[in-house]
Amino acid sequence: MPDSLPKIAFIGLGLMGAPMASHLLLAGHEMHLYSRSRSKAESLIAAGGIWYNTAAAAAAKADIVITMVGLPSDVEALYLSSGGLLDRAKPGAILIDMTTSSPELAIRIAEAAAVKGLSALDAPVSGGVGGAANAKLSIMVGGDGDAFARALPILEKMGTNVRHQGEPGAGQHTKMVNQTVIAGTILGVAEGLAYAKAAGLDCERVMQSIATGAAGSVQLNVMGNLMLKGDYNPGFMITHFVKDMTIALQAATANGLDLKGLKTALAQFTTLVDAGLEREGTQALAKVYD
Amino acid sequence: MPDSLPKIAFIGLGLMGAPMASHLLLAGHEMHLYSRSRSKAESLIAAGGIWYNTAAAAAAKADIVITMVGLPSDVEALYLSSGGLLDRAKPGAILIDMTTSSPELAIRIAEAAAVKGLSALDAPVSGGVGGAANAKLSIMVGGDGDAFARALPILEKMGTNVRHQGEPGAGQHTKMVNQTVIAGTILGVAEGLAYAKAAGLDCERVMQSIATGAAGSVQLNVMGNLMLKGDYNPGFMITHFVKDMTIALQAATANGLDLKGLKTALAQFTTLVDAGLEREGTQALAKVYD
Repeated sequence: MPDSLPKIAFIGLGLMGAPMASHLLLAGHEMHLYSRSRSKAESLIAAGGIWYNTAAAAAAKADIVITMVGLPSDVEALYLSSGGLLDRAKPGAILIDMTTSSPELAIRIAEAAAVKGLSALDAPVSGGVGGAANAKLSIMVGGDGDAFARALPILEKMGTNVRHQGEPGAGQHTKMVNQTVIAGTILGVAEGLAYAKAAGLDCERVMQSIATGAAGSVQLNVMGNLMLKGDYNPGFMITHFVKDMTIALQAATANGLDLKGLKTALAQFTTLVDAGLEREGTQALAKVYD
Repeated sequence: MPDSLPKIAFIGLGLMGAPMASHLLLAGHEMHLYSRSRSKAESLIAAGGIWYNTAAAAAAKADIVITMVGLPSDVEALYLSSGGLLDRAKPGAILIDMTTSSPELAIRIAEAAAVKGLSALDAPVSGGVGGAANAKLSIMVGGDGDAFARALPILEKMGTNVRHQGEPGAGQHTKMVNQTVIAGTILGVAEGLAYAKAAGLDCERVMQSIATGAAGSVQLNVMGNLMLKGDYNPGFMITHFVKDMTIALQAATANGLDLKGLKTALAQFTTLVDAGLEREGTQALAKVYD
């Protein structure tokens, strides 16, 4: 009975947001849509989604408001500006930010939401465009446990590994753990393969010796093989990864940590941004060593 | 017909060498043994191995000489000193160094061996004590192709992933690729989990969110979980890893590379050596961030 399903506002219909919203639409939810450019919403509108000219107008119609935008500054403006989501959402609504953003901002949003009788969850994802398309995202959620329980059936329409990680900000913190692990791993992969190339080895054969052992990782299998092919098309764009690592480093420093590996990875990727390569995939880290 | 099998000298019966030699003994090879302390050889002697008081005396009896010792300086002394393996090995013998050692030394040994009508292979392994015990090592081989072909049936009694990687030194270079990838990966794992702990997250639950996605690796699954348990018993000792990273960094630098991630990992592990923790497992990298 579609009428009994929560009404959803989905804000941000980019490469990730559009397929995520599409799963909810197909599941029968009444979908209220906003994105910076309407063109991104056309196929969802054709399938029954309802378009609004502002994010807040879409949010005003919904029981659940989901945001999937770009930068923490975008998230902050959406939620906390005057006339923004927290001002216009329906009493009792749950607002779920699935953008990878700062834990500190997630906490501020949750506090501001509570003041207004709303619930806010931070629920960043991993799994990329493929995970979004196949509804196989890992979703890491911070915030109130009751709100998580209410949101879970909806989140499970977009992901297969949906976990409540704790208080507000815990979802973002968990994503930062994920990105910190990836930062070191891809650094090792890029440097290992740079070593192999410089030593004149047959890199494909080296991969056959090392990929199944203690050096094995998703980064080695996926990004390592793209590096060897010289295929730098973005699965995950450098500019986004640099944003994430910057947030992680700030949060880690605020917690008294000195993450020298993360700093090194961020510095290496920053040289690629400086070289104008920020829209290539993270596997272009190999170019630092060419 | 055991009599038709090549006679093997096995030099170095430590945690890795003893189980490796045991597979060859069980396969019926006549085994000539030497290790710095005879006590390491007792069970192999009881099973039919023949003990010698010097490495060179053992080598003189064998068609295939295998060395599995500690440092490149040990390898150099064994092979290149006067009255050493190259002086005493039988004409036509194949000498296989399975120690993780320097590519440059492997090249020097291969050249010196050729002058004496001998063949030398560099064949370091990965897979650790477990891989040695189960004969499931990955073995990365450099050196003459014909010598590799002759050695292959013997190497396959110790490993499941035995590959000829190229000229003399290519086996050691491949192992250095492996160690360089691991260095970055374990750095990412340690820093990610340090972040999680400092942020007050439930680290086990974080692991459930991230281990199956893009952050996934053998290092995360194995060493990450040991870090969370606070179990620092060595699967792979810090002192050995520091040796390997030092060799890798020297070889990379000689090839014109600046591997900042590897340098960072080596510096972090070196702080643990300075703190007297060199005999703990590599997962004790977590302690840098405590």
